[in-house]
Amino acid sequence: MSSTKELAKERFLKVFNNAVEELKEVLVSYKMPQEAIDWFVRNLEYNTPGGKLNRGLSVIDTYAILNNTTFDKLSDEEYEKVALLGWSIELLQAYFLVADDMMDQSKTRRGQSCWYLVEGVNNIAINDSFMLEGAIYVLLKKHFRNDPYYVDLLDLFHEVTFQTELGQLLDLVTADENIVDLDKFSLDKHSFIVIFKTAYYSFYLPVALAMFMSGINSEEDLKQVRDILIPLGEYFQIQDDYLDCFGTPEQIGKIGTDIKDNKCSWVINQALLIATPEQRKVLDENYGQKNDESEQICKDLFKSMNIEKIYNDYEESIVAKLRQQIEQIDESRGLKKDVLTAFLGKVYKRSK
Amino acid sequence: MSSTKELAKERFLKVFNNAVEELKEVLVSYKMPQEAIDWFVRNLEYNTPGGKLNRGLSVIDTYAILNNTTFDKLSDEEYEKVALLGWSIELLQAYFLVADDMMDQSKTRRGQSCWYLVEGVNNIAINDSFMLEGAIYVLLKKHFRNDPYYVDLLDLFHEVTFQTELGQLLDLVTADENIVDLDKFSLDKHSFIVIFKTAYYSFYLPVALAMFMSGINSEEDLKQVRDILIPLGEYFQIQDDYLDCFGTPEQIGKIGTDIKDNKCSWVINQALLIATPEQRKVLDENYGQKNDESEQICKDLFKSMNIEKIYNDYEESIVAKLRQQIEQIDESRGLKKDVLTAFLGKVYKRSK
Repeated sequence: MSSTKELAKERFLKVFNNAVEELKEVLVSYKMPQEAIDWFVRNLEYNTPGGKLNRGLSVIDTYAILNNTTFDKLSDEEYEKVALLGWSIELLQAYFLVADDMMDQSKTRRGQSCWYLVEGVNNIAINDSFMLEGAIYVLLKKHFRNDPYYVDLLDLFHEVTFQTELGQLLDLVTADENIVDLDKFSLDKHSFIVIFKTAYYSFYLPVALAMFMSGINSEEDLKQVRDILIPLGEYFQIQDDYLDCFGTPEQIGKIGTDIKDNKCSWVINQALLIATPEQRKVLDENYGQKNDESEQICKDLFKSMNIEKIYNDYEESIVAKLRQQIEQIDESRGLKKDVLTAFLGKVYKRSK
Repeated sequence: MSSTKELAKERFLKVFNNAVEELKEVLVSYKMPQEAIDWFVRNLEYNTPGGKLNRGLSVIDTYAILNNTTFDKLSDEEYEKVALLGWSIELLQAYFLVADDMMDQSKTRRGQSCWYLVEGVNNIAINDSFMLEGAIYVLLKKHFRNDPYYVDLLDLFHEVTFQTELGQLLDLVTADENIVDLDKFSLDKHSFIVIFKTAYYSFYLPVALAMFMSGINSEEDLKQVRDILIPLGEYFQIQDDYLDCFGTPEQIGKIGTDIKDNKCSWVINQALLIATPEQRKVLDENYGQKNDESEQICKDLFKSMNIEKIYNDYEESIVAKLRQQIEQIDESRGLKKDVLTAFLGKVYKRSK
């Protein structure tokens, strides 16, 4: 990690510590008993800052580009505000992940036990997830209530939260881990799931938040970035699905489990699209089965069906299209192409 | 049920049906696959309208009093808006109840199986609870975005939601059903739990919403109603705790289970306050135990400790105090004493 990146993360984390103190003070002002205050702080600290923080940091990156500066040149006051928008996304993600891990019965997250599996937590994790979301609005009110774009921030968070929940719902009703039925899958559903469950909150939300704080808030400009960031987010997730199956553990830093987990992944959907009746039979019998042999049979079949080439063609074509779209961006109201170029650069040809 | 009451409920339910149609249309406009739309509609219909609807209807009652009218004289347009505020509280309650039932491992709710126990639902209920909350903000945006008090509605919902979650958190960390430790209980904690978990959203929220829509929005007036409705809500819950132990099944329409469930109830807290060391020993050994004998031993002890008289004294004293406070309300900015008298009348001496 470069030194600038480390400094950026360090400054960002300081704002989280302040935010936790502020949230604690709200509870103290309510005269809440200490044991519940301690619980809430532990919930915040266990679940919010342990990831890569890409989403949160990208609010700051975007804001800096839009205002022709870099994060280290922002005053403490200005930095804190934009960083709080970043932490609001991280809190939103924490809210989703605590709940997703319960729904998926996952075991670990970010190298530690999932929160609901921590001793003494169990189903209290449901209310804890609610409170992670609640913290967003406590912080936004405290820091943005007097800004003219406050109501836009609230509307945006509500909209994106609901969209993410819609994506999660379709994912849950499409891919039951225990009932394998490939007829339920389709590329259309895959596209809906990844756009709603991932692209809105991970790609559109950070940029839109930075735009509001920069006073770039016309519907035209929001549409310009949305029209690029949503397909870019879809591409990101397709890449994720591809790497889960075809990446090496060294490349992706984990062992892919999509095949065994019966995931509605881009890979299986592409395969279903071109499978002969014989190949389809092999998939019906082996996809979503929890053993290594079935997984290997699926992987071998995907290789023989040339899914890798289909992916590479898709990647080249979507990247060319996105570059062209970025080129055509209208910067007359203050939007900058560089914002989108930076995002594309982080995704293209990434291996993890 | 009187005919006016039936008509009031009927008109209110019509607005819910419209709201479901509107929410469905949002999903259709996103091109969401039909199976997920059907799921969401089922979630809304199963979990939102089945209760007594007191909270939702009280928004309309309050609005009518503040505007010198009755619900049947409101135009369809005006009625729909105020009813949507009522349904927003019912959606908020649905969000809490779906989750609470999972956290408490309850079996039934409103005479039907709890949502998470319905076949095929299970942990998807977590995301479903999120979506019930999300529906509030979709509806508020659609119907109130252009009103000057829109941002006040959002702030109020956020604040009350967070307060309710704080109450739930303290309840969860204080009263583990399986680990009986009466040292964890106290009247202060009981007071915090009932005020935060129940009083804010059930008593303050409906009145504050009706006030905003009526243009009565000064901090002084909001404080006037809060200072009465929060102790009134606390009284309501204390009464609930009292009836759970001392009411007959015919009176309260259910069989109380607080003693067996190790609930941090007003009754046990009052008993702990005055128990001799011998009585305390009996409580330590029998409270929270899942058998009828232990329950009866607790009940007999409560009777011998005169908890009924303590309750009756409390009730007379709090009601006298609330009446006096209502008498002193400043109506100069449009607030009406009748709003609060109506609420008090619904609670005082109620038996179910």
